[in-house]
Amino acid sequence: MEIAQRNEQTDGADQVSRARCWFKGLAEKLMHKVLEIASKTKKLGQEDPRRIIHSVKVGLAITSVSLFYYFDTLYDGFGVSAMWAIMTVVVVFEFSVGATLGRGLNRGLATLLAGALGFGAHRLATSFGEKFEPVVLGLSVFLFGAVVTFVRFFPKIKARYDYGLLIFILTFSLISVSAYRTDQVIQMAYQRLSTILIGGAAAIIICVVICPVWAGDDFHSLVASNLEKIATFLEEFGSQYLKASSAELVVNKEFPQGYKSVINSKATEESLANFAKWEPRHGMFRYRHPWEKYLEVGNLTRQCAFRIDALNGYLTSEIQVPQEIGAKIQEICKKMTSETSLALKEVALGMRTMTMPSSSADSHIENARMEAKHLKSLLKTRSWPDSTDLLDIVPVAAVASLLIDIVACTEKIADTVKELAPLAHFKAAVVTAGQQKQLTRQQTHGREETHHIITMGESSPE
Amino acid sequence: MEIAQRNEQTDGADQVSRARCWFKGLAEKLMHKVLEIASKTKKLGQEDPRRIIHSVKVGLAITSVSLFYYFDTLYDGFGVSAMWAIMTVVVVFEFSVGATLGRGLNRGLATLLAGALGFGAHRLATSFGEKFEPVVLGLSVFLFGAVVTFVRFFPKIKARYDYGLLIFILTFSLISVSAYRTDQVIQMAYQRLSTILIGGAAAIIICVVICPVWAGDDFHSLVASNLEKIATFLEEFGSQYLKASSAELVVNKEFPQGYKSVINSKATEESLANFAKWEPRHGMFRYRHPWEKYLEVGNLTRQCAFRIDALNGYLTSEIQVPQEIGAKIQEICKKMTSETSLALKEVALGMRTMTMPSSSADSHIENARMEAKHLKSLLKTRSWPDSTDLLDIVPVAAVASLLIDIVACTEKIADTVKELAPLAHFKAAVVTAGQQKQLTRQQTHGREETHHIITMGESSPE
Repeated sequence: MEIAQRNEQTDGADQVSRARCWFKGLAEKLMHKVLEIASKTKKLGQEDPRRIIHSVKVGLAITSVSLFYYFDTLYDGFGVSAMWAIMTVVVVFEFSVGATLGRGLNRGLATLLAGALGFGAHRLATSFGEKFEPVVLGLSVFLFGAVVTFVRFFPKIKARYDYGLLIFILTFSLISVSAYRTDQVIQMAYQRLSTILIGGAAAIIICVVICPVWAGDDFHSLVASNLEKIATFLEEFGSQYLKASSAELVVNKEFPQGYKSVINSKATEESLANFAKWEPRHGMFRYRHPWEKYLEVGNLTRQCAFRIDALNGYLTSEIQVPQEIGAKIQEICKKMTSETSLALKEVALGMRTMTMPSSSADSHIENARMEAKHLKSLLKTRSWPDSTDLLDIVPVAAVASLLIDIVACTEKIADTVKELAPLAHFKAAVVTAGQQKQLTRQQTHGREETHHIITMGESSPE
Repeated sequence: MEIAQRNEQTDGADQVSRARCWFKGLAEKLMHKVLEIASKTKKLGQEDPRRIIHSVKVGLAITSVSLFYYFDTLYDGFGVSAMWAIMTVVVVFEFSVGATLGRGLNRGLATLLAGALGFGAHRLATSFGEKFEPVVLGLSVFLFGAVVTFVRFFPKIKARYDYGLLIFILTFSLISVSAYRTDQVIQMAYQRLSTILIGGAAAIIICVVICPVWAGDDFHSLVASNLEKIATFLEEFGSQYLKASSAELVVNKEFPQGYKSVINSKATEESLANFAKWEPRHGMFRYRHPWEKYLEVGNLTRQCAFRIDALNGYLTSEIQVPQEIGAKIQEICKKMTSETSLALKEVALGMRTMTMPSSSADSHIENARMEAKHLKSLLKTRSWPDSTDLLDIVPVAAVASLLIDIVACTEKIADTVKELAPLAHFKAAVVTAGQQKQLTRQQTHGREETHHIITMGESSPE
């Protein structure tokens, strides 16, 4: 008996301690999870503090529109319809001004048009008599719904007016169908339109006035920074790979991998361009800024990035390049990459500051092209030792060929930026000390600074 | 006088004829535009007839839900709230089942949760007394609005629950703010929720029952067809480029450019994977189908496509390859590309039919690897004529190096598909005559047929 009792007691103590352990474990796990989320949140905010500002702006916009409900004088005018204003703010308020304007205008215009058409459909339906009214209404809703849904598949229309078409179907159905029950269609349409206008206006005003995020600015600096990323890679490649190739290929994991984000930037660039097209004149950007040309520059940059991805393969592959060959090509390739990198940085700098590309970019490209010719003629003279194995040449030849491709690509980029410059009203190239300081601050990569200063020094006498 | 009159007359006649010309021109332009739009519409419908079906389905869904307005018995239950059902159908109905389910579930759950919280906020606010009620309500709307907007920036949450969070903010604001004016908050929340459920259910049922478009099916065949596109390119490359290289490089514009769509397929694949995750079991796909593995296969396929893009550069570049070198490597490269192409087709076939990858794919890869070794040893023995210019070797060496890369990439793809096969419950590889016929039909490219038959013949005895 006693033993059994003692056993029970120990069992009970065991269970309690086990339960304690379990709770402790759970609490620890929970704590760990909370800390993880907190650190992720912090990182998200630090990456782009505009996200926090945006969140506050949205909260502010909704609260300010909800004032309609609290003040009697405002509420009496609209009644329950005031909720459309809140809905509009929530649905229309986007991160960038362009996106918000695009959604707001789409929503407003679509509501206006669909309201008018819905009212027309209602009038048409009533003229058919009470019996056929629902049939005509149903048919018109079906037809408009199906046709407009199909129109949403057109790629160009989808890119700019998708939301408008959705709201068109919505409003048309609501107005024409509600009309069957209420006689005050006009008043209903008017209330819906005016509350949407109020909500849209509130969203747009708060979005533009408080720390606006311009999609155009983002797009502009994305294109420039992509160019810079490629330039940085080439610079490092010239100094690292070609140093290594004289002895042995070292797999350097700290190699700048920034170019990888360039490869997948197409979708981001296209959506930013679409938003930017909605934006009015701001800063250096006019209303009809040539965003299409920016997309061209972006596409060429991506083509360059594909080649760089292939180059990167030679950094991580295990092929060893013998010293005798490596050293010969090293010098030329080093010059080629450094000249290409300088040219790309010049072009990126011109883009960033919106100044006419200086002729020093051209001279860098010209130098790179000359080096490419040197490389070709070096390969032609076959000044190789007889013991050279052809297999050893393969990676060197492939790298050389890729570099030649990249030089050609850089030339195309420079040409496109030259076409862009007058269209985008770039300033004449006069670099003041203040601008230079600003640029230096914009560069996050420490090593780039020196190069910019060298570049500026070279370009100033021209 | 007479002359002046005559002049006026001729002037008048001139104006009339000019106006006629102008109208005629306008009519012609309009006619031209209409025809252009008609042809574009036809093309859009022919490209994917499911678009037409989808449009009809949307029209049908809206019309069927609008029946609530026409029948008195249905209308009496919900009143004006019935419009939420129409709104839900319009907003939730998407092209694929997965997207529709995702939006529907997001909307339903977010409304439920936000409704409950909104009601709680209303209760909390009233307990503070009449004076502070709007202040507490405003604060809670501001807080929830800002915090949830920030949560929408988390990439993983954005991918799956973005719409739900938007609806959460919307419903929470509507319910908690409306509560200030109406006392029937519960009834309002109930009506909103039930009409949304009705609308969502109508959308989902019509989407699933009438010719459903499964995002999973689309994703599955996209990944398989991307593999096929690369295989087709390699096949053509082996027969065209290497034939040309023995004489002179011909720029062949009819070269299959299908691989270009592979390069930019990342965004499409990711959104399809997101939709597919919402879909229930259908056909060969279970609920928790390993879509992540499909994304891995897609990423590797894209890496292969980047290399192919570089290869393509050698087709369009103007470098001439001398016969003596070209002919030597030709045979080996031809075998390499054809073996790689066969292996990729085998893998693609396995993916498409969801059968375990047969060991013949492995043997093709093994062959390709052997050829790569041959190529290396050929380059090593330096069996070149002494007159060979090193410059002539560069493109050949680059092509060889890229092909070796592609073989390595193909191996990785085959390995990933092998990992995928048991996870996705692929069938054991038994190929019946019926299946083979079906496959042959699926292949749009005429030349591919013969290869498949050869492949099948090779694989059957194993």
